[in-house]
Amino acid sequence: MQTLTHQEITAMFLALGLLLASARLFGELARRFNQPAVLGEILAGILLGPTVFGALAPAWSTFLFPQVGGGALALDGLMTLAITLFLLVAGLEVDLSTIWRQGKLAINVGVAGIVVPFAVGFGAAWFVPQLMGIEAGADPLLFALFMATALSISALPVIAKTLMDLNLYRSDLGMLVVAAAVFNDLVGWIVFAVILGLLGTAPAHALSIGQTIGLTLLFALFMLTAARWLINRVLPWLHAHASWPGGVLGFALALALVAAAFTEWIGIHAIFGAFLAGVALGDSRHLRERTRATIEQFVSFIFAPLFFAGIGLKVNFVAQFDLLLVVAVLVIATLGKVLGCGLAGLLSGLGKREAWALGFGMNARGAMEIILGLLALKYGLIGERLFVALVIMALVTSLMSGPLLQHVLRLKKPRRFTDFLSARTYVNHIQARSRPEAVAELAKAAAAVAGLDAADVIDGVMIREEIMATGIGHGLAVPHARMRGLDRPVVAVGLSAAGIDFDAPDGRPAQLIFLLLTPVHDDGVQLELLADIATVFKGEEIRSRVGQVASFTEFLALVRSG
Amino acid sequence: MQTLTHQEITAMFLALGLLLASARLFGELARRFNQPAVLGEILAGILLGPTVFGALAPAWSTFLFPQVGGGALALDGLMTLAITLFLLVAGLEVDLSTIWRQGKLAINVGVAGIVVPFAVGFGAAWFVPQLMGIEAGADPLLFALFMATALSISALPVIAKTLMDLNLYRSDLGMLVVAAAVFNDLVGWIVFAVILGLLGTAPAHALSIGQTIGLTLLFALFMLTAARWLINRVLPWLHAHASWPGGVLGFALALALVAAAFTEWIGIHAIFGAFLAGVALGDSRHLRERTRATIEQFVSFIFAPLFFAGIGLKVNFVAQFDLLLVVAVLVIATLGKVLGCGLAGLLSGLGKREAWALGFGMNARGAMEIILGLLALKYGLIGERLFVALVIMALVTSLMSGPLLQHVLRLKKPRRFTDFLSARTYVNHIQARSRPEAVAELAKAAAAVAGLDAADVIDGVMIREEIMATGIGHGLAVPHARMRGLDRPVVAVGLSAAGIDFDAPDGRPAQLIFLLLTPVHDDGVQLELLADIATVFKGEEIRSRVGQVASFTEFLALVRSG
Repeated sequence: MQTLTHQEITAMFLALGLLLASARLFGELARRFNQPAVLGEILAGILLGPTVFGALAPAWSTFLFPQVGGGALALDGLMTLAITLFLLVAGLEVDLSTIWRQGKLAINVGVAGIVVPFAVGFGAAWFVPQLMGIEAGADPLLFALFMATALSISALPVIAKTLMDLNLYRSDLGMLVVAAAVFNDLVGWIVFAVILGLLGTAPAHALSIGQTIGLTLLFALFMLTAARWLINRVLPWLHAHASWPGGVLGFALALALVAAAFTEWIGIHAIFGAFLAGVALGDSRHLRERTRATIEQFVSFIFAPLFFAGIGLKVNFVAQFDLLLVVAVLVIATLGKVLGCGLAGLLSGLGKREAWALGFGMNARGAMEIILGLLALKYGLIGERLFVALVIMALVTSLMSGPLLQHVLRLKKPRRFTDFLSARTYVNHIQARSRPEAVAELAKAAAAVAGLDAADVIDGVMIREEIMATGIGHGLAVPHARMRGLDRPVVAVGLSAAGIDFDAPDGRPAQLIFLLLTPVHDDGVQLELLADIATVFKGEEIRSRVGQVASFTEFLALVRSG
Repeated sequence: MQTLTHQEITAMFLALGLLLASARLFGELARRFNQPAVLGEILAGILLGPTVFGALAPAWSTFLFPQVGGGALALDGLMTLAITLFLLVAGLEVDLSTIWRQGKLAINVGVAGIVVPFAVGFGAAWFVPQLMGIEAGADPLLFALFMATALSISALPVIAKTLMDLNLYRSDLGMLVVAAAVFNDLVGWIVFAVILGLLGTAPAHALSIGQTIGLTLLFALFMLTAARWLINRVLPWLHAHASWPGGVLGFALALALVAAAFTEWIGIHAIFGAFLAGVALGDSRHLRERTRATIEQFVSFIFAPLFFAGIGLKVNFVAQFDLLLVVAVLVIATLGKVLGCGLAGLLSGLGKREAWALGFGMNARGAMEIILGLLALKYGLIGERLFVALVIMALVTSLMSGPLLQHVLRLKKPRRFTDFLSARTYVNHIQARSRPEAVAELAKAAAAVAGLDAADVIDGVMIREEIMATGIGHGLAVPHARMRGLDRPVVAVGLSAAGIDFDAPDGRPAQLIFLLLTPVHDDGVQLELLADIATVFKGEEIRSRVGQVASFTEFLALVRSG
């Protein structure tokens, strides 16, 4: 049996380790700037790929990321598996019932969100193919069909994430956007599958185009009806008779792999089968949250970063960067989507702001666009210049989506108390035994950071304290004051093993004391911070574990990761 | 860039899907017969491999599991990744502090558990190499060293699992076995790494044997000291500053991959690096149970089954089966291990039964032996005949371990109430309103299954009920009776939405009623079943969810998978 050589295995593990580590690192950095992780992951790949690392150290680059031979094939197999599993997770996130609940409006917006960008994209690629970066010798009709589809696909995961970040996910508008995006996703991928069939990439066994398209539609129908029904019956049986959670995990993955093999066989890509398997699985009320989380976490944090970093390895993003093409693709993509969805919203009776928000929300392309582009590149449908333009368009539309939604809906993200807390305002062992002493100890730390006079801060807090004690029970106290001369809030935290009486309704002494100083002009922030603290420390478990915390880092670790 | 063809991708996904599905299926079946899952997983591979499927349908077999070309290389890369991740998990399970707590006795047993089988194995392979299946032209010293190591390695995962099944894991004897096995594992793998270095499988860059061995020992030392210390510092920082659980998941996997690349580079196998990375990670008190579970579940239920089923693909287990060799390997392996550990136990002052139990416990080889054999096969150190014998030896010693321990310690597995419950004794909606009616309803179902007279059963239960009411609070009741003419217990379960008064101490009516009929001669079983019921329904959540159960399957699903 042909196996990888010692050197190929060494290179494979080192390449995977480096890709994963840098993708996660840049993903975290992107997140720190409130951007989607995929931006950082692709950037990591661009740095490791031909654009930067390959240009600086070509010999090392060839060793790590070989272009031919066993190493290249093994990496390609792994990346194909990674993206297929990512689509399984994307499918799991689809909630079919959302579409039904939102009914006609969602379908209107979903249809308009496909038809208008499809028409705009098709028109541009058909009438000015050079501007859209067609390659010499490409079939103009297939190219136009591809561009039309590429511009009409939305990125459900990015959209869902943006809405959650803005606390809009469960609102009427949020559910409408999600429902329209789900519909959009389903239809968009089916159309793309059909285009892949038209491409005739299928091999020797060669189904005809008609057969491929027919089988694609039949398969989609089957997965969304009979398979969905069957899965819903099988899952409780697995829970009852197979080991937990191995039975259902194995079933879910095996189903996705076999479905992937089937769609690859009929001449469309493997990811389509995995996506539909995910939709069918995710729809069952018997799929436990725990199973979903295990699959999603492993795939989102291991396979997806590997795949997206792998994107950067494929192409030189500097050499293939074409500003005119990037701008053209970006403008046409945004125009089609925002107009299509926005107008559909207006015509369906939404307010102006909501209609625009709908358009901006649906405009996020994210990962899906990139996957589509990669397949088109692989099958020779587009060139590297256009691929780079599509990747950039996908990233830019994803980045714009959140801020534009926020702007048009005049939203603010709720602020978290950890945003205003630092090691300098954290006191692991409060020395104080009484309320005034404790306030003074925390006030001094907070005043130093805020550049205020400590005595002023103590006065302000104690005046408030005399009006109403700030012990809120369960061992928590939140002394606070609005301070003149403060630009942004300052939070100080102190732990007291003995506990300090803050006159709480339940009579318990406070072992965890938050001092909140907020600007006079900012009305909402005090309540936001109080609500955040109350939410974080709601559970009995976290309150008991906070007593064992030994440092600021461990305190943050507890608050952020439970 | 060289990529897999359409046909290779189709075959890869179908092969992975089939391997995973059948490995999980047979793994579950093995589990049903109280055998380790790995037995079923390897069996699935033997069925799909050249032994059965390949002989029946050679063309299909070549398509699915190609021996050469891109498909073979991609599958080899994946399997190498799978086994490396499995060793990461095996490392996570090692608890270094257990060794320290058990102190000198554990080290004695651990040393004897290596030295004796090592000597026995070396002697056999050196003096009667033909009997031990040496290949023509093999270096007799390397062969003897390999056999010595192969026979001295224990399988920590199998041992831990066996002890847990027998409720011995937290006992003194259990902890001693685990500590000795951990020590055994660590030393055994380091010795094997050194042998691999001696093999000189390293490529062009060619470290000398001395360098390889030196680097191996340095690396092991580094991972168990400095790296361990560093990881313990990094984890809280990741929890505090990176996304949860993506930060720590990415870190753990990237660390394992880079460590794997390093050990592959120095000329020993990648799995060794991943194993030590796992030990170093698993030792940190900051590694959360949740993170551990996500990695372990995904690896144990997806990657490990794929890998172990893959074993069966490598060799024709019928054609290469050599009874004499199998028996010789089995006898010598068992002799060395049982004598070594047993004598060390006796000399350290353990009782006779405990000493034998120690030997039988440590004798389980499980997955580790097979991995070792596979590497030896790959590097040409052994032939297929011996590989088959090693696999069978590993499986047989693993299978023997539990029953022998049980026998020598005169243990019984605690019985579970679900073992004696069936759809025919499950009543989803009890019609009854009163205690006698409810008892009668359940007694009729139980009597039919047990072949008893329903009136006798009702009498027996009601007499017991009059002596002492069986409502145990929290909405549970456990009416019960010992019945003449019963061979094995029968359990009936009934749900009552309205609740039936069983005179519970907390006054709450019973909504979940268990009727237990047990044989007269079996004193312990009634208590075991009562304890099991009380344990399963201890939590508030499961008691509230049981009310929503709609069928016997859903009831079992809730009890078994929470």
